[in-house]
Amino acid sequence: MTISIIGTGLLGGSFALAVREKYPKVRFVGVDASMVHGQLAVAKGLVDEVLPFEQAVSQSDLVVLATPVNTIIELLPTVLDTLPHFGTVVDLGSTKETICAVVDDHVRRAQFVAAHPMAGTENSGPGAAFRDLLPGKNLIICDREKSRPDSLTLVESIFRDIGMKLFYMTPQEHDLHLAYVSHLSHISAFALGLTVLEKEKDEQTIFDMASTGFSSTVRLAKSSPAMWAPIFDQNRQNVSQALSDYIEFLQQFKTAIDAGDTGESFGFMARANVIRRVLEGIDKK
Amino acid sequence: MTISIIGTGLLGGSFALAVREKYPKVRFVGVDASMVHGQLAVAKGLVDEVLPFEQAVSQSDLVVLATPVNTIIELLPTVLDTLPHFGTVVDLGSTKETICAVVDDHVRRAQFVAAHPMAGTENSGPGAAFRDLLPGKNLIICDREKSRPDSLTLVESIFRDIGMKLFYMTPQEHDLHLAYVSHLSHISAFALGLTVLEKEKDEQTIFDMASTGFSSTVRLAKSSPAMWAPIFDQNRQNVSQALSDYIEFLQQFKTAIDAGDTGESFGFMARANVIRRVLEGIDKK
Repeated sequence: MTISIIGTGLLGGSFALAVREKYPKVRFVGVDASMVHGQLAVAKGLVDEVLPFEQAVSQSDLVVLATPVNTIIELLPTVLDTLPHFGTVVDLGSTKETICAVVDDHVRRAQFVAAHPMAGTENSGPGAAFRDLLPGKNLIICDREKSRPDSLTLVESIFRDIGMKLFYMTPQEHDLHLAYVSHLSHISAFALGLTVLEKEKDEQTIFDMASTGFSSTVRLAKSSPAMWAPIFDQNRQNVSQALSDYIEFLQQFKTAIDAGDTGESFGFMARANVIRRVLEGIDKK
Repeated sequence: MTISIIGTGLLGGSFALAVREKYPKVRFVGVDASMVHGQLAVAKGLVDEVLPFEQAVSQSDLVVLATPVNTIIELLPTVLDTLPHFGTVVDLGSTKETICAVVDDHVRRAQFVAAHPMAGTENSGPGAAFRDLLPGKNLIICDREKSRPDSLTLVESIFRDIGMKLFYMTPQEHDLHLAYVSHLSHISAFALGLTVLEKEKDEQTIFDMASTGFSSTVRLAKSSPAMWAPIFDQNRQNVSQALSDYIEFLQQFKTAIDAGDTGESFGFMARANVIRRVLEGIDKK
């Protein structure tokens, strides 16, 4: 079996490492717009060789699209055009509605499986890939009824076998939930980083005075703009609504603080504390 | 030497554990409004015994005020009234301007050292205390010229000896910086928790779809409202300004996303990425 990884970064590379352990006979081909990333991916053993896009896709049993979501949209129709009849393509993009829509009328739509693993770090590139990123995490598959049974079985089998738990929903449901539980937290971290950097011109002061609490809250502000700008763009409506909701809560909080109403701000925090229960579950995953 | 810890929680308890290791002959007395916390503090070996406030303070060489900041303001003048002539009191509160102001004209002001360790977790109570919370972290001392030399030497010696690095500034500088590098990140996390809980009524959905990135960003939303409501209140003006700045950045971000201006949102994120350099330092601390 030949699997092509298009985009040999954190996600594509970590997928390859996890699958290699369970399926040692699979041949992995890498495709990457960056020659250096391709070289690193081979050197690290993520893929066996790097080939040009068309050559890789045309000989693949499975193509894994693990690029930023704007590139997924560009490449996905061409992958379907180029893929052998027996082949399957799965994408790992963080948005699902736009991606599914772009091939909804494609004559070979059934060879595509739309997926999104709930896993990542603030780092990117082949150097950031590690074997344990995906095992134990959740995978969301969208529009499964639009994939042909053997393509779906191939994708489900491999992801289950590397230890992922599968969930199914519509692309619309996926994008709405993700705006709140993922995209919003990235924007809140980016804006926090900007606010502090803008105020504290001397980085040494931040360094001296910040504790690990700040570090944890702002961690996602290290994330790749090239990956996130197109995600926010493709999920524009949901992200915009989530941001409105968030700004509204911040403004209510500010009003309570300005008024010296500690009872009100206590109440906000006590309600937010409910998240402890949820986090205990997530952190155990 | 007798040290009284008023408030035997995360901070007071962790201080006692760190000092005990370096100064095994010190007798530690706990004072706590909660009888259960007092019992736990003795059971865990944080303090040797629990005594009533006045009895503890009147026989102490050093009193450590480690309660929420509203209680610090209530107790600090009385501690100074009650303390022996040779005694010293240090507070560990997260605000400094209001606390320093409340005893600025006290006849025994010089026996007080205003301090704030840049350390904490989202947990509280004696059960959360651990020996390694403070070592390796920074301690800010404010208005040092208002403390008498022997009180300052006592506090500096002990905190340095448990591995803390000392910094000096005015209460005004302290509160301004803290609003940005600490207080704001707590509010951003509380508001994020509220926004997601409000939207996702089914906690299982958050659990299934959130990744460790969300968990990291929202972690501080688990923090104690009883501790944080008075901090935001005492540092009201700075926190309010920090919140305004933060909301302004979020709104700019939203405007860029609404307009489909990926170049603009890319630019915001690239600027925020500078935080990576700062965080690498903090995480190594």
